[in-house]
Amino acid sequence: MRLDGHLGARGDTPPAVVWSAAVEAELRCDLGHAGDLTTDAILAPEARGEAVFRAREAGCVAGLPIALYAFTVLDPTAEFEVSVGDGGRVEPGDVMATVRCQGRALLSAERTALNYLGHLSGVASVTRRLVDAVRAAGATTDVVCTRKTTPGFRALEKYAVRCGGGANHRFGLDDAILIKDNHIALAGGIDEAVSRVRGRSGHMVKVEVEVDTLEQLDAVLELDVDVVLLDNMRGERLAEAVRRCKGRVVTEASGGINLDTGPIVAQAGVDLMSVGWLTHSAPCLDIGLDIDVT
Amino acid sequence: MRLDGHLGARGDTPPAVVWSAAVEAELRCDLGHAGDLTTDAILAPEARGEAVFRAREAGCVAGLPIALYAFTVLDPTAEFEVSVGDGGRVEPGDVMATVRCQGRALLSAERTALNYLGHLSGVASVTRRLVDAVRAAGATTDVVCTRKTTPGFRALEKYAVRCGGGANHRFGLDDAILIKDNHIALAGGIDEAVSRVRGRSGHMVKVEVEVDTLEQLDAVLELDVDVVLLDNMRGERLAEAVRRCKGRVVTEASGGINLDTGPIVAQAGVDLMSVGWLTHSAPCLDIGLDIDVT
Amino acid sequence: MRLDGHLGARGDTPPAVVWSAAVEAELRCDLGHAGDLTTDAILAPEARGEAVFRAREAGCVAGLPIALYAFTVLDPTAEFEVSVGDGGRVEPGDVMATVRCQGRALLSAERTALNYLGHLSGVASVTRRLVDAVRAAGATTDVVCTRKTTPGFRALEKYAVRCGGGANHRFGLDDAILIKDNHIALAGGIDEAVSRVRGRSGHMVKVEVEVDTLEQLDAVLELDVDVVLLDNMRGERLAEAVRRCKGRVVTEASGGINLDTGPIVAQAGVDLMSVGWLTHSAPCLDIGLDIDVT
Amino acid sequence: MRLDGHLGARGDTPPAVVWSAAVEAELRCDLGHAGDLTTDAILAPEARGEAVFRAREAGCVAGLPIALYAFTVLDPTAEFEVSVGDGGRVEPGDVMATVRCQGRALLSAERTALNYLGHLSGVASVTRRLVDAVRAAGATTDVVCTRKTTPGFRALEKYAVRCGGGANHRFGLDDAILIKDNHIALAGGIDEAVSRVRGRSGHMVKVEVEVDTLEQLDAVLELDVDVVLLDNMRGERLAEAVRRCKGRVVTEASGGINLDTGPIVAQAGVDLMSVGWLTHSAPCLDIGLDIDVT
Amino acid sequence: MRLDGHLGARGDTPPAVVWSAAVEAELRCDLGHAGDLTTDAILAPEARGEAVFRAREAGCVAGLPIALYAFTVLDPTAEFEVSVGDGGRVEPGDVMATVRCQGRALLSAERTALNYLGHLSGVASVTRRLVDAVRAAGATTDVVCTRKTTPGFRALEKYAVRCGGGANHRFGLDDAILIKDNHIALAGGIDEAVSRVRGRSGHMVKVEVEVDTLEQLDAVLELDVDVVLLDNMRGERLAEAVRRCKGRVVTEASGGINLDTGPIVAQAGVDLMSVGWLTHSAPCLDIGLDIDVT
Amino acid sequence: MRLDGHLGARGDTPPAVVWSAAVEAELRCDLGHAGDLTTDAILAPEARGEAVFRAREAGCVAGLPIALYAFTVLDPTAEFEVSVGDGGRVEPGDVMATVRCQGRALLSAERTALNYLGHLSGVASVTRRLVDAVRAAGATTDVVCTRKTTPGFRALEKYAVRCGGGANHRFGLDDAILIKDNHIALAGGIDEAVSRVRGRSGHMVKVEVEVDTLEQLDAVLELDVDVVLLDNMRGERLAEAVRRCKGRVVTEASGGINLDTGPIVAQAGVDLMSVGWLTHSAPCLDIGLDIDVT
Repeated sequence: MRLDGHLGARGDTPPAVVWSAAVEAELRCDLGHAGDLTTDAILAPEARGEAVFRAREAGCVAGLPIALYAFTVLDPTAEFEVSVGDGGRVEPGDVMATVRCQGRALLSAERTALNYLGHLSGVASVTRRLVDAVRAAGATTDVVCTRKTTPGFRALEKYAVRCGGGANHRFGLDDAILIKDNHIALAGGIDEAVSRVRGRSGHMVKVEVEVDTLEQLDAVLELDVDVVLLDNMRGERLAEAVRRCKGRVVTEASGGINLDTGPIVAQAGVDLMSVGWLTHSAPCLDIGLDIDVT
Repeated sequence: MRLDGHLGARGDTPPAVVWSAAVEAELRCDLGHAGDLTTDAILAPEARGEAVFRAREAGCVAGLPIALYAFTVLDPTAEFEVSVGDGGRVEPGDVMATVRCQGRALLSAERTALNYLGHLSGVASVTRRLVDAVRAAGATTDVVCTRKTTPGFRALEKYAVRCGGGANHRFGLDDAILIKDNHIALAGGIDEAVSRVRGRSGHMVKVEVEVDTLEQLDAVLELDVDVVLLDNMRGERLAEAVRRCKGRVVTEASGGINLDTGPIVAQAGVDLMSVGWLTHSAPCLDIGLDIDVT
Repeated sequence: MRLDGHLGARGDTPPAVVWSAAVEAELRCDLGHAGDLTTDAILAPEARGEAVFRAREAGCVAGLPIALYAFTVLDPTAEFEVSVGDGGRVEPGDVMATVRCQGRALLSAERTALNYLGHLSGVASVTRRLVDAVRAAGATTDVVCTRKTTPGFRALEKYAVRCGGGANHRFGLDDAILIKDNHIALAGGIDEAVSRVRGRSGHMVKVEVEVDTLEQLDAVLELDVDVVLLDNMRGERLAEAVRRCKGRVVTEASGGINLDTGPIVAQAGVDLMSVGWLTHSAPCLDIGLDIDVT
Repeated sequence: MRLDGHLGARGDTPPAVVWSAAVEAELRCDLGHAGDLTTDAILAPEARGEAVFRAREAGCVAGLPIALYAFTVLDPTAEFEVSVGDGGRVEPGDVMATVRCQGRALLSAERTALNYLGHLSGVASVTRRLVDAVRAAGATTDVVCTRKTTPGFRALEKYAVRCGGGANHRFGLDDAILIKDNHIALAGGIDEAVSRVRGRSGHMVKVEVEVDTLEQLDAVLELDVDVVLLDNMRGERLAEAVRRCKGRVVTEASGGINLDTGPIVAQAGVDLMSVGWLTHSAPCLDIGLDIDVT
Repeated sequence: MRLDGHLGARGDTPPAVVWSAAVEAELRCDLGHAGDLTTDAILAPEARGEAVFRAREAGCVAGLPIALYAFTVLDPTAEFEVSVGDGGRVEPGDVMATVRCQGRALLSAERTALNYLGHLSGVASVTRRLVDAVRAAGATTDVVCTRKTTPGFRALEKYAVRCGGGANHRFGLDDAILIKDNHIALAGGIDEAVSRVRGRSGHMVKVEVEVDTLEQLDAVLELDVDVVLLDNMRGERLAEAVRRCKGRVVTEASGGINLDTGPIVAQAGVDLMSVGWLTHSAPCLDIGLDIDVT
Repeated sequence: MRLDGHLGARGDTPPAVVWSAAVEAELRCDLGHAGDLTTDAILAPEARGEAVFRAREAGCVAGLPIALYAFTVLDPTAEFEVSVGDGGRVEPGDVMATVRCQGRALLSAERTALNYLGHLSGVASVTRRLVDAVRAAGATTDVVCTRKTTPGFRALEKYAVRCGGGANHRFGLDDAILIKDNHIALAGGIDEAVSRVRGRSGHMVKVEVEVDTLEQLDAVLELDVDVVLLDNMRGERLAEAVRRCKGRVVTEASGGINLDTGPIVAQAGVDLMSVGWLTHSAPCLDIGLDIDVT
């Protein structure tokens, strides 16, 4: 279950049929009823141009095919050259890609392209930073994201996490089972909760249970579960929990994990750590588009 | 053009017809083909429950009607009680709203509701913080957002900025004209750029021009423009620019504005400051949902 | 604010991403479940043909790219030659464009193409006629359309008005403010109405107020408004109103404007006249498609 | 095949599921990103009001349920009272319906409602006028519309024609067969054309053939067709054509039919006359909304 | 009204604009948030391949263009060679078509393509079998399908019936009139029912009436109807019914028709027989895709 | 992993937000442009009625909430009484549910409702029959469906399988990994294939491998896989395969399973058997709607 690595390992962009309609809708939102008033007034339709996406800060690229598609929508003859593709690292000043198309398309799609590229690269970059910190601490723990995603953006944000060297937890409520504290309370106990979901879940569905204490953990280890979520455990308690699980069940740590605590949690030997802020609070990566129209 | 103030002044939620389909799509995305496997296995359909949205950090509320609608989609009998509505301030522990509906709906819509509420309140909260800092410095400068929004989220993020006491710049490329450096270069000069857009723009469309130097500013002041964007100006140069514009054109500052520099820029007397990170990099506001099912 | 002129000045077709889905939907509506029963029975799929759009009455062209796209949807190899494009004038018998594609596509898309082209050219033609009448009277007054558009057709009808030499008023309720008699009554007076909208509207939003009397006009001239709508004023009263506004606020006349009264109103010196029937009551321009299939 | 008559006879509104999404889309188009800036600034959300749809010219009503639905979308508690419903005749000043709902909903949905009601009542009114003229001439000829409809509006415009006492020709290319001059030329003759469509068309599909001359008509009368379209025939030639068809095939006249020529054509005894301008060139019916908010 | 025959006669595939969005949606459904996990992990993006659709049982082909489009969506460079197209007959082992495209596209679109092709060929094959049985019995009776179609699939299932040598009854509730027992009871008699629909139906709409007895039939024959549905009649009673209708009205048999009874019913001389199970219960045709990736 | 059982165990209907738009689209497809011509002509709008869904053959119910929703769309006041709900068994003549609503809604939604209910109950019924046969043979093997579903119907058909006592395999290509013969060949061996997917798959994703021989099985048992698909094995070879897997990996049999072979395969002790024809070839369950309008 070694998930981290280069993009070839697990960062492939989802097929365009998954996201093309969203890009088109976003352009329609920006173009409104009358299109780009400023550009159309200033630039003749026959003008063509070239533009370069350039990183203004260090980070990890994600979303380039999606961003570039925005130009294709406005000008089907647009051509691209990718210098650092999705999953690659950039330093300030690095060129990510070059676009050649109608000048109007360059100017009118610029913001839509940058909004996608900045947001997704932002997610990839914070992921990359955390993964790097974990690796620097000598740990192989995987960094995974959660369902705390921006509405409308789950598939692409999860992809950006993969671009940043992270992995994905479940995608929605129906592709895996995660029994949380509320569920345990409602079922009247961990045994009962696991028993109920096992009686319903298909054979291709994994089951994970959240525990807060070692006592709960021991109860879970008696049951047929695939993953245990060790919530807000730290230090020796976390190390002890991991020891008890070793060879029996996959371990996932969650709660309060950041660039400082992440490496420490990883050193306790957990298989994964799940982090909500990778997707819900990553700042945009600062990227510029240098335009040259002739 | 005094824009700041309480929610009643300009924070009204857009009509549900504008955003209801998005919330439904987000629920469909999360429910997938088979719905909430965990909850449906554990909780009987007839169970009902109550849940409380509670702030876990200080901030400003935005998106409550949108978040609550998620429960209505799954259970049309859902009932709500709002304690601190959109535009209101919350401290850690404050209750924002109470929901009563089917237990399954509570658990299955929880994440969708929190993803909307956390994201939008995050935008409102950073806006509020900047507006407060500006006011604390004794300035009346308005804080406005840009087109650097999260794809798919423009209308609601702009609303969240209003909830936080900010105002909106243009919504898209077709409701106002903003002549930037690229446009000026392509037109071959500021005069020509303004002349071209004036020859095309309707009488209800305002025109803004970006300038980097006082020389450019003087050129713009000779022309028929409504707003001038003073990009990356600071200190005495900014103050001088504002003085030259006073009574002639609205002034907007942009570039490098944060909680520290914002109040200083404001004290230079600009009418507005525009800030991209309000929408593209605001971290989620931490909000919990305490669920009680019977 | 000189808006009238040749198409290059302000008639550019909105990008296809704005209207392509509508054309496809219209074809689906016409093709139904089984397609064009008549044509498919009579014409072999391999037949190709040529067809010529020809004006049957004088007018102004609008919507050609939209109409031609209908053939592309049914036959991606369709080729076009435009003789008189959008914004151009045609006399009876003039060829507007030539289409070459599969014979079945020619016959099956004919009606969809003509319905778009006839409707939009109809709007452009009545606009052109009114603009010409105003110019013939020696006036520079702009002719603008309103929000009285055919449902589902606003962006394209407003574009057709631009093709006809007219300009656009606001596109919707959120891109500009227009205070009408109802609003004034509800606010309890013009002062209060303007004050309320100024306290809420962004700095890129223009404000217009409708007045019926010179007294109301004087009140408005004391306030911060961009445009004044002189409703149903004529003759000396209109001239006086224009005089009072000169150099202070843009003037727009509305109410009862037709090909006879329009030039007279224009000669009073108003900056604009807004006319609902350009979009809601323009008769179709009569255009034929001469088909030659081999 | 007596089609004319009161609304009960054939004017029932299509079910809301057919048109509700279009009304919602139209409202979204008008409300844009931020809603009705003017109304929201001026009117408090709790205000309620009443408004009255009143005819400003004589005509025939169509589209009232569609127009009223616009208010329901913005305010689900909206209530209505219909005075003169679809298919009814109105004189200037007549009240068509009364609406009671939130004041903001009244003002914000007004234009959408009027755009639907005016357009559809316009179609119904010209239809009604032509039908009345035909009846006044003592003829029972049915007035039918064509596929020359406004894009996006076919189902509702055809309904409006029924409201005006007219009937519908086929709805699209797949529910009936109409062999026109192009088809005859392509098939190499009327016999061959009819033979080809008969070999393909289902047993529930009617076949109509367009003829220009009495010779063509005689050829058609030898074949298995249901309806013959007598294109641009007048006077004695038309009367003769009708005589030859009597008892053998339904007759439809088309081409150059207006309020003057229609009654004359009808008196020749044709079963139907088809008229494109009922749908593609009907001017809007002038209707006002008198609003009273408290 | 001879409907049976080769595909050229009436099996043309509806234009892609009618079904392309459905294929794209089906691919999105299968690809989910992250695409084809298995294939993407195993196969490099640059690999290309070839695959062959091969029948595993005898039948009739339908839906090949729709199935092949699935590959085009994932790889616009996909190329096809059709060996036995829609409407053709296949024996076990026969190649239907060959696809060349990216290897990943081959594997990821395989199931979507086969689900369309198997389902539609299944419908075509049972139709073909029944038509063949009828022809073998020396009868020319047409085999037609009903509105008992799989939800979401009506247009394509009806097309598949045409591919199999059958014909289509009406497509929906609005393109033809079928008066059934419930309608007769509600109207208070056949006369009244026919009279009511004739007073409302357009001139291009055919009218059919269902009868259970010869007495009902005699009543119908007095009225203006186009088709009579002889429900559940057999043997001499059916033959007598057909005799009474001959030359006066088209006859359609329905109820309990299968491969055994169909030919017998046909020999009674009915013009058509309608069969629900052609569309609602046809088993999938067994087709394999042999993939060869390099 | 005991999956079989009563509906309460795992048959809950997916939330309406998942399928309501499909039902509405299906009604729109049937109603077309003008609605139900027959019913609207015959029945007054104010008539109300009652109708009873009655099984005409033995089977298992699925899709009742979906079918009933069709009436709600046309008449929001529709009321229902369920006698035998989803997952229940019916004998010929058994009442499944009673509907009370407007008479027109009853007649116009009848076909849509029956098309859903018949199709889904058909799937549930064949599933039920196979599950019963397996149980009668004393086996606890689960019956699961595949991705061989009707396009557009996956979520609901998989639900119908659950209603019939079956369980679901993966829902799409992205929620679980299934390595088939093609994948093994492309990877160059089972080891390499498993290694590649393990390097990419998230921790909540199960991995299954298809094997044809005992040698392949032994190779798989050395690897980290969750489920092994024993393709087309029978008799002693299957029993031996199951023995080798016992306690190490879940076993799934596939290929050539029907009502005769299914129980025999089950007795070999496999955990699951997957069956494509449950979803792609289940005949409609014969259900009638007895209508009584007043």
